Amino acid sequence: MPVRSREIRLKSRPKGTPTPENFELAETELGEPGAGEVQVRNLWMSVDPYMRGRMIDRPSYVPPFQLGEPLQGGAVGVVEKSNAENFAPGDLVQSMLGWREAFNLPAKGVQKLDPHGLPPELFLGVAGMPGMTAWVGLLKVGKLMEGETVFVSAGAGAVGSVVVQIAKLWGCTVVASAGGADKLAYLREIGADQVIDYRAEADLAAALARAAPKGVDLYFDNVGGDHLQAALGALRPFGRAAICGMISQYNDAAPVPGPTNLALVIGKRLRVEGFIVSDHVGDTPAFVQQMAGWISSGEVKWRATVDHGIEAAPNAFMKLFSGENIGKMLVKLS
Amino acid sequence: MPVRSREIRLKSRPKGTPTPENFELAETELGEPGAGEVQVRNLWMSVDPYMRGRMIDRPSYVPPFQLGEPLQGGAVGVVEKSNAENFAPGDLVQSMLGWREAFNLPAKGVQKLDPHGLPPELFLGVAGMPGMTAWVGLLKVGKLMEGETVFVSAGAGAVGSVVVQIAKLWGCTVVASAGGADKLAYLREIGADQVIDYRAEADLAAALARAAPKGVDLYFDNVGGDHLQAALGALRPFGRAAICGMISQYNDAAPVPGPTNLALVIGKRLRVEGFIVSDHVGDTPAFVQQMAGWISSGEVKWRATVDHGIEAAPNAFMKLFSGENIGKMLVKLS
Repeated sequence: MPVRSREIRLKSRPKGTPTPENFELAETELGEPGAGEVQVRNLWMSVDPYMRGRMIDRPSYVPPFQLGEPLQGGAVGVVEKSNAENFAPGDLVQSMLGWREAFNLPAKGVQKLDPHGLPPELFLGVAGMPGMTAWVGLLKVGKLMEGETVFVSAGAGAVGSVVVQIAKLWGCTVVASAGGADKLAYLREIGADQVIDYRAEADLAAALARAAPKGVDLYFDNVGGDHLQAALGALRPFGRAAICGMISQYNDAAPVPGPTNLALVIGKRLRVEGFIVSDHVGDTPAFVQQMAGWISSGEVKWRATVDHGIEAAPNAFMKLFSGENIGKMLVKLS
Repeated sequence: MPVRSREIRLKSRPKGTPTPENFELAETELGEPGAGEVQVRNLWMSVDPYMRGRMIDRPSYVPPFQLGEPLQGGAVGVVEKSNAENFAPGDLVQSMLGWREAFNLPAKGVQKLDPHGLPPELFLGVAGMPGMTAWVGLLKVGKLMEGETVFVSAGAGAVGSVVVQIAKLWGCTVVASAGGADKLAYLREIGADQVIDYRAEADLAAALARAAPKGVDLYFDNVGGDHLQAALGALRPFGRAAICGMISQYNDAAPVPGPTNLALVIGKRLRVEGFIVSDHVGDTPAFVQQMAGWISSGEVKWRATVDHGIEAAPNAFMKLFSGENIGKMLVKLS
């Protein structure tokens, strides 16, 4: 008997901020999984800021989403039927086939998930790609050292909240920015020493100077724009900026000018370095091992904002840009 | 009998491009060198773009020049009188007391110069700070690898012309920019594979794309502004930008916007890193040894634009910003 699966397709490419009209809910039927295939029912899917870039038709490190096709992204599901060796119904798996309720796929396209005794949706957040992004950016790209002062923007988000906590585990002083009282309270709860409500500050550079009067050693950038400008001003000699994202600019229809103080990189010998977590896939087992330990011991806390049902996915994605989520934004599918 | 020495003092801080009114020629008298001091007559003095930064009253990695005081900078001189151990009349020395004809100084403030059989003024250029800036920026900061494609701005200048030649020694493809036919001819003479006359190009990014159709691995920035923007666009994945200077911006009275494409550092995993050669002073003997060998063998060529007399020094300095010099800009003092 065929299985019905609903999915979200890209109907049109967003111009500026995405709107509901850019997305389309559709239904397909799945046959039986072919030889070597598994049939997976998704339990959770992820929405992430980087997906905005894939909605633009341009060459990049991942190919653009295609119009009329279902979107893709991280998902955790359960095997319903298996026609592949080593997979059995009930197995938990991760895949990049989010934005749909179910799918058939050759088994090599999914990874078995060992949840380490944790809720499986954590592997879309703190113990998954966003958490590993924080870990890679701080430790491998930023070369964080004990006792440094760290500034992270979007500190209450899926990546930023892990940045805050890893930096605290390293004995660092942490300054974090976010928008609104709820997020600031959350930042304090997870250990941020100083918090900045960027929506309430007319002069972000002045706010950062007050929060970190001796300057910043490492800036973890999720936001770009004014945040990067303020950070360049605050970085101490030989400081580093690990550039993870620039969400403030993803919806800009036209190019926006960069920081006016970029020349500071010379006198202060700054290193500004972009990175993508997937370049570090070989470190995944080491990351998962370490992070699962931190979560189990309570040294790293996590939080998610959860919407329900595949039809809620476009709106969940749009919340990333209006800043409505605290912690990881997830969609629970079944 | 007292020795007369003429010197150039900072009369007023430049607003925008320096003008003759910012400088003042004055004369002082030197007594006999005190205990532990040497008396030095300068043979050559250097003018360098970084001096513009020291004319601004702001905290930086070197303190600002003081109004009414003689300027400072690299110089090569000869000991006339010595009241210090280990120094004798006739010794060649280097110091930071350029912009004057002669001085008395404790001997620890000067370094004996072994010219390695080369003209001593080369130690203000290709075999001195500018040459070592190219060497450090390419090899230590940029981590140049054999066979890469290198783009250097201000390629016909004191630093850029050494960048071109070291990169060619490393078997690289070199694209260099400069302004005007004479500089382009010089760039070809020293081995640049592709040259760009930035003054003749309405679209620098397009010119760079034509000159380096497969992209650039390493950008050596002396200019900033449009050059940096074009380079960020041309850099290949995992490319590096070694930021040595941004001469296009040194005379700007107000902050200018940075590159509109800085977000490319994420998708292309770029590293943008500023540096200052004096952080690498410990490498000086290794650099001088290697560079003296290259010059003696003819593998590295050098060229200077020479003005004469201390009274010519302000104008020589101003030529750096109008782009009138090819190779190292020097002032011959005696």
